[in-house]
Amino acid sequence: MKIVIDAFGGDNAPLAIVRGGVDGLKETDGFSIIFTGKADEINKILDEYCPENLRSRIEIEDCSEVITNDDVPTTAIRKKTDSSLVKGFKLLKENEDVGALISAGSTGAVLTGATLKVGRIKGVSRPALAPVLPTVEGGNVMLIDCGANAECKPINLVHFAVMASNYMKVMYGVENPRVALLANGTEDHKGTPLTQETFAMLKQIDELNFVGNMEARDVLSGNYDVVVCDGFSGNICLKSLEGMSVSMMKLIKQGVMSSFKAKIGALFMKGVFKNLKKKMDYNANGGAMFLGVEGIVVTAHGAATEQTIKSTVLQAKEAVEGDVVGKIKKTLENVDFDSLVKADIL
Amino acid sequence: MKIVIDAFGGDNAPLAIVRGGVDGLKETDGFSIIFTGKADEINKILDEYCPENLRSRIEIEDCSEVITNDDVPTTAIRKKTDSSLVKGFKLLKENEDVGALISAGSTGAVLTGATLKVGRIKGVSRPALAPVLPTVEGGNVMLIDCGANAECKPINLVHFAVMASNYMKVMYGVENPRVALLANGTEDHKGTPLTQETFAMLKQIDELNFVGNMEARDVLSGNYDVVVCDGFSGNICLKSLEGMSVSMMKLIKQGVMSSFKAKIGALFMKGVFKNLKKKMDYNANGGAMFLGVEGIVVTAHGAATEQTIKSTVLQAKEAVEGDVVGKIKKTLENVDFDSLVKADIL
Repeated sequence: MKIVIDAFGGDNAPLAIVRGGVDGLKETDGFSIIFTGKADEINKILDEYCPENLRSRIEIEDCSEVITNDDVPTTAIRKKTDSSLVKGFKLLKENEDVGALISAGSTGAVLTGATLKVGRIKGVSRPALAPVLPTVEGGNVMLIDCGANAECKPINLVHFAVMASNYMKVMYGVENPRVALLANGTEDHKGTPLTQETFAMLKQIDELNFVGNMEARDVLSGNYDVVVCDGFSGNICLKSLEGMSVSMMKLIKQGVMSSFKAKIGALFMKGVFKNLKKKMDYNANGGAMFLGVEGIVVTAHGAATEQTIKSTVLQAKEAVEGDVVGKIKKTLENVDFDSLVKADIL
Repeated sequence: MKIVIDAFGGDNAPLAIVRGGVDGLKETDGFSIIFTGKADEINKILDEYCPENLRSRIEIEDCSEVITNDDVPTTAIRKKTDSSLVKGFKLLKENEDVGALISAGSTGAVLTGATLKVGRIKGVSRPALAPVLPTVEGGNVMLIDCGANAECKPINLVHFAVMASNYMKVMYGVENPRVALLANGTEDHKGTPLTQETFAMLKQIDELNFVGNMEARDVLSGNYDVVVCDGFSGNICLKSLEGMSVSMMKLIKQGVMSSFKAKIGALFMKGVFKNLKKKMDYNANGGAMFLGVEGIVVTAHGAATEQTIKSTVLQAKEAVEGDVVGKIKKTLENVDFDSLVKADIL
C-alpha cells in the first residue's frame, strides 16, 4: 500500500514534510510513500535524512508547480496540473495500490481537489472535514463538519454522522460510537430547522447510536464520540475551543511572569504544563480527515512539523488498512435514506 | 431611580439574591431596589442582613408564585401573573422611575417576559442576549446574540451591532467600538448567505465602526469590542469557550494531583490560578444584557451568588444612568435601514 505525500504543502515544506514522512517509514512497515514535488529538492533532503534501507520504500513524482494559500482553490486545481497536490490526487485516483493522500497545503485546495479529482463516495453529496479532538477523560471525539460546508441540508449531516461513526469504530475501536447533534440546548426540539430535521432523521437510523442534542460546552467532556454539525457551526466551535486554549495559556504565562513566587511554582509544574500543551495541540496528533471521497485524504495543519506529518502518516495508514472508506460505503448501502421522513420530535 | 430584582429566580434564591441586592446598595448611592417575591421570606433575610440605614432604599412587591426552569416560558409568563418575574416586568413597564430588572431565573422566561410584558424598542424586531467577556488584553468584548434567536435575518444582526456598539460606548467608554461579524474566515465573502448579506449591510452604516469578518479563535483576542452573530452560532461560541475553560482547569487539576512536585508548584502558583479562575468566571462580572427591549433587563446565571447579583446591580444602574436604551433608539433613528441593500462584497 502506498501513501502520497504532498511534499510542497505547508509552511515548513518541503523539509519538515519529507522528514516527517521518513519518520513514518521508520516507525512501521507495510507501506511505502510517494512524495510529490520538485524531485531535486526532495532528493536533497532524503540524501541527508533518509537511512539507506528505507529508500526502496520511497518514490518521487516530479512536479514543477506548487499551490499556495494565495491561489483560488478551484482555479488552482484546474490550472496547476503539474502541481504537487493535483499530481498527488491523480495518483490516488488512478492507482489501486495508492490508499491515501496527505497535504499540509491550502485546505481549500485540498478539499476542492479531493472532490473534483478523486470524486465523492456514491450517495454522499457533501464530503466533510473532520478533526479528532482529545477529551478530558482521555478519549477522543470527532467533530464533523468543521468547515468544508458552510451551508448544509439535513441529509448532509446524516451522512456526516454515518461517516464519522464508522471512522471512530475503525480507528479507535469504539464499538457503538455515541453520536450527538450540536445544538443550542439538549432538549429534543432545540435548534434551527436544520438541526430539528436532522434530529428527526438521525433518530430513525438503526445503524447509528444517536444520543440526541448536545451543547458546545460538552464537546470535550468525553460523553460523545461523534459531534455532528454544519461546517459553519463546527468551525466556530473548533476555533472557539482553540481560542480559549490559547487565551488561557497566555493568561497563565502572564501570571507566572508577574511574580517571582509564581515563577518558582511554574518550574515545579513544568511537567503539567508540558502535558497540557501537548494535549491541547491538536496538530501534533495528526490531521483532519476529509471524509466522503473515494480514498483517505488527510489535511495537516499549515504549520505542520515533522512530528505532525509522522502522526498523519500513521493515521492515514491505519485508515486505509481499516478500510474506512469501504465501511462507510457499506453502512450507506444499508440505510434506506429515501424513507427518512421528518418525524415528530416534540 | 429604582431597580427591580426578582428575588425568587436562580438556584440560590432568595438568600443570595436578596443579600447581593443589599450589597449593591452598600456599594453606591443614587438608586433603590424593589424585590419581587414572597414578602415574608424576603423580610426575614433583610432583618438578618440589611443595615437599618439602607431599609429606606428597599421596597418589596409581594408575589405568591415563582417561575421555575421546568415551566414552559410562554405559558408561565401568561399564566403565572402573580410570579416574582411577571410582577417585576409589570413594575418596569408601568413606572417611569423603574429603570431596570434583574433576574437569575429561567433565561427563557426572562427573555419571553421582557419581550411580551415590557415590549421591544421600536424598529427592533428581535431583542438579543449579550454577555460581555473579558479579553486577554484586559479589555472587554460583547458577544451578541448568544442564544435568544436561533434563527436570524441580516437586519436582526445589524440591529444587534447597533445596540452592542452603543452599550460598549456607554458602559466601557469605548469611543468607536470595533464591530466584527463572526464567520468561518476573515475574508469578506466568507460565511453563509446570512453573514454575507449582513456584511454588505454593516459596511454601509456610518454610525458603526465595522471592521469585517472575524474567526471564533479571536473572540477573546482584544481586537474587537463587539462580536455580532446569530443566536445559534453565538451560543456555540460562548459554550465552546466555557467548555474549553472548564476542560483546561480540569486537566491542570488532574496534573497537579498526580505528582507531589506539581502539588508544591501549584501552591506557589495559587495566586495565578485564582486570578485565572476569576477572569474566566463570567458570572462574577455581572449578567448578560437583553438588549432591544424598552428597559434594562439583565439575566444573571442560574448559579448566581451574592457577588454576581451585586455586580449585576451595579451594571444595571450604570446602564440606566448612561441611558443605553435612549442612545440605541437615537442611533436607530439616524440609520436609514430601508436604503440598506445588498452591496457587492466580492
